[in-house]
Amino acid sequence: MFTRALRTRLCSPLAFEHTASVRRSYGSVPIAQKLTINGDRLWDDIHYTAQFSAPSPGGVTRLCADENDKLARDWFGEQVLQLGAEYKVNATGSQFAKFGGEDDTIPPIAMGSHLDTVATGGRFDGPLGVISGLEVIRSFKEQGIMTRAPLVLINWTNEEGARFFPPLGSSTVYAGQSSIDAAHASLSNDGSGITMGNELAKIGYVGDGPNTFEEFPISAHFEVHVEQATDLEKAGKPVGWVEGWQGISYYEVVFTGEDGHANTYPMYGRRDALTGAAKLIVQLETLAYAKNGYTTVTNIQSGPSGACNIQSKTKVVFCLMHRETEGLEDMGIDIVRSIQGIAALHGLEYELTRPVHLLPDNFWPEAVDCVRRACGDKGIGSRTGTAHDSTMTRLKCPTGMVFVRGKDGISHCAKEWSDKEDCKEGALVLGKAVLNFDAYLQQQVAKA
Amino acid sequence: MFTRALRTRLCSPLAFEHTASVRRSYGSVPIAQKLTINGDRLWDDIHYTAQFSAPSPGGVTRLCADENDKLARDWFGEQVLQLGAEYKVNATGSQFAKFGGEDDTIPPIAMGSHLDTVATGGRFDGPLGVISGLEVIRSFKEQGIMTRAPLVLINWTNEEGARFFPPLGSSTVYAGQSSIDAAHASLSNDGSGITMGNELAKIGYVGDGPNTFEEFPISAHFEVHVEQATDLEKAGKPVGWVEGWQGISYYEVVFTGEDGHANTYPMYGRRDALTGAAKLIVQLETLAYAKNGYTTVTNIQSGPSGACNIQSKTKVVFCLMHRETEGLEDMGIDIVRSIQGIAALHGLEYELTRPVHLLPDNFWPEAVDCVRRACGDKGIGSRTGTAHDSTMTRLKCPTGMVFVRGKDGISHCAKEWSDKEDCKEGALVLGKAVLNFDAYLQQQVAKA
Repeated sequence: MFTRALRTRLCSPLAFEHTASVRRSYGSVPIAQKLTINGDRLWDDIHYTAQFSAPSPGGVTRLCADENDKLARDWFGEQVLQLGAEYKVNATGSQFAKFGGEDDTIPPIAMGSHLDTVATGGRFDGPLGVISGLEVIRSFKEQGIMTRAPLVLINWTNEEGARFFPPLGSSTVYAGQSSIDAAHASLSNDGSGITMGNELAKIGYVGDGPNTFEEFPISAHFEVHVEQATDLEKAGKPVGWVEGWQGISYYEVVFTGEDGHANTYPMYGRRDALTGAAKLIVQLETLAYAKNGYTTVTNIQSGPSGACNIQSKTKVVFCLMHRETEGLEDMGIDIVRSIQGIAALHGLEYELTRPVHLLPDNFWPEAVDCVRRACGDKGIGSRTGTAHDSTMTRLKCPTGMVFVRGKDGISHCAKEWSDKEDCKEGALVLGKAVLNFDAYLQQQVAKA
Repeated sequence: MFTRALRTRLCSPLAFEHTASVRRSYGSVPIAQKLTINGDRLWDDIHYTAQFSAPSPGGVTRLCADENDKLARDWFGEQVLQLGAEYKVNATGSQFAKFGGEDDTIPPIAMGSHLDTVATGGRFDGPLGVISGLEVIRSFKEQGIMTRAPLVLINWTNEEGARFFPPLGSSTVYAGQSSIDAAHASLSNDGSGITMGNELAKIGYVGDGPNTFEEFPISAHFEVHVEQATDLEKAGKPVGWVEGWQGISYYEVVFTGEDGHANTYPMYGRRDALTGAAKLIVQLETLAYAKNGYTTVTNIQSGPSGACNIQSKTKVVFCLMHRETEGLEDMGIDIVRSIQGIAALHGLEYELTRPVHLLPDNFWPEAVDCVRRACGDKGIGSRTGTAHDSTMTRLKCPTGMVFVRGKDGISHCAKEWSDKEDCKEGALVLGKAVLNFDAYLQQQVAKA
């Protein structure tokens, strides 16, 4: 019924020929129109799970594989088992909760996001997506809704990269962009040398569940997320369908100079790695303005540690963001020239890597359309400024995202906020999008 | 014989009226002229003890109260006990090895320096001073030289401040500029939160020896040190007498901005603490050139740690150095204005402290003269660009320093180097200076 050829076609990132046909339908399928969401329970779970956090007034600090992440994962496991899930943890700690459909030969439709947060982050970035998915499963059960395709709810590991670099620590493996070994070897941003693999093992979250799309294919991936910008707020809309993303490059540069006495060594002839790094940071700010993009330095580590050393080694991690490919590439060329110039001026050596290079692009139109129809007149089209686990799954299968209005575009901050009614609307759109896609799958199978 | 009044006068930093009289004599006392030093043994000990180090090719990394510092301390304790010392460790871990004189009612003449080093430091800064003192004691014993005053050899704790801030961790307590509790509470520069007191206790170096000058007065303090500049090298002289020091201020500034998403938050309205800190670092370089002083940033810590956060809190520790008081004060005024301006421009709050503020000044002329006469025509007068434990003892008693020629002024670096013959000459000058001062003390007592 659901042929391998069709699956392959559905799961090709080039399957854009569906656009025209899916755009013909302008609303959710009938079953989706009846769906309701228990907004109180959703809201309560968001704030209940916020307790699994290091002290973080008003917000959440739940770093990948820390003791609070373990508590949140344990809670998630209990919830999905209570709902009758077939539950697995994979080698990089991602939690998969599968629920049967009418035809279990069809790859499941996935809802996924992450329960980890950044340090001093908010209550919504990540958890809103997972908990919305949980609420959709609960609502389907309560309202007797059975999809044709099975469903899977995924809590992806280390989306944020807040503790271990690089981010999207498990979804990159799933999408074939990294390996289990590489993910396990991800180093802590604090320079302490601890790895994600060891820390996941410590909390008991290295499992035997599926690691790659090829092992465990999914028909589609949908994700609810706070917008982290102000398009919805300005338009007065609670939700949005996410059409695509801006381009993002992460660079890591390590400047190496020479040791010297901080008080006595002459200014002339110094090879001060930190002074070089500071000039780079200042130039990054200028670059953002000059190119109408965004730039942020996200990590600096410098040594030797001490009170009386010229700094001989300084690592800087920074990201460049631009809505257009040309703009992003242009910024990259400029900043590499800056690094070369700084190194030449200060007598520094440097090592430069670009661990992330994500060109701006669009999500799969058939998935976006399912979200768009689910939003109806409560939503607008928007774009995300950052990467999500969905940015990885879209390499393998139709992927769409639901945005929920946030306050003032503030995110990765304790002040991050979305109203209860908006969160409820986001979960409702997620559920409707899944039902729309389930119907779309049936339509494709019928055509095949 | 040695009255309390005289002691007080000798130990007053204002006792400069002695200068004229001591300048009348132009050479070392007769006993000092016969002194010899075993250069092989001195050289061997310098390189033998360099093994007590974390891996540090060519140099030494022996941080205060780490396992290698313990080994070096243990070695020092064994050496002085073999020489018959009355041996004590004080509450901040400093090791005091006292050797009797002809008149033990006289406060001992001290030789002191430090066995701790900076990270990725050299073999001479610190150890040369302690081992030279040890070699002087050995030579006195072997050559039957008995001083009238007792002698004490001191290994001061945490001179470098490489692991725990602030530096001069024990000599500040001795000089009444800090307390045992404050020294114990000195925090690690790496932001890990460990304290000097706990780490000293771990290696068994919190003792009941004397902590302050008042508990254990000394008649004088002499210290051998590598020059860390190029005056001796340029003059073709192996040794020098240190007339004084340049001014040094250390500042710690913590900029606090606001958390935000690194990829999505608009450039406008950001309160990025690290960008502010980078501008400060760049301005510090300019300030050094503009004011003909020195500036160095010695530590930067920024957070939240992660891959996707605007940096909301950045700590920068930096030092300003100038040969003249006016220059130092002027630089301080300028940089505080810069910090205020940066904070205003970037919407940052800041906390600023100045944990070290050492105005340029001179060592005690009676002690300097003893070193000058010991150097004879092998030395020149020089000035140090940094602080030493002697900078603290001079608050309490006549203090002088011996410089040993280093290569290219390089210090706090594995390349730091002094030739064997120069080290031998330095230890010889130390011994002669002690004997000169012992004779000077007798002369003062005779006058009293």
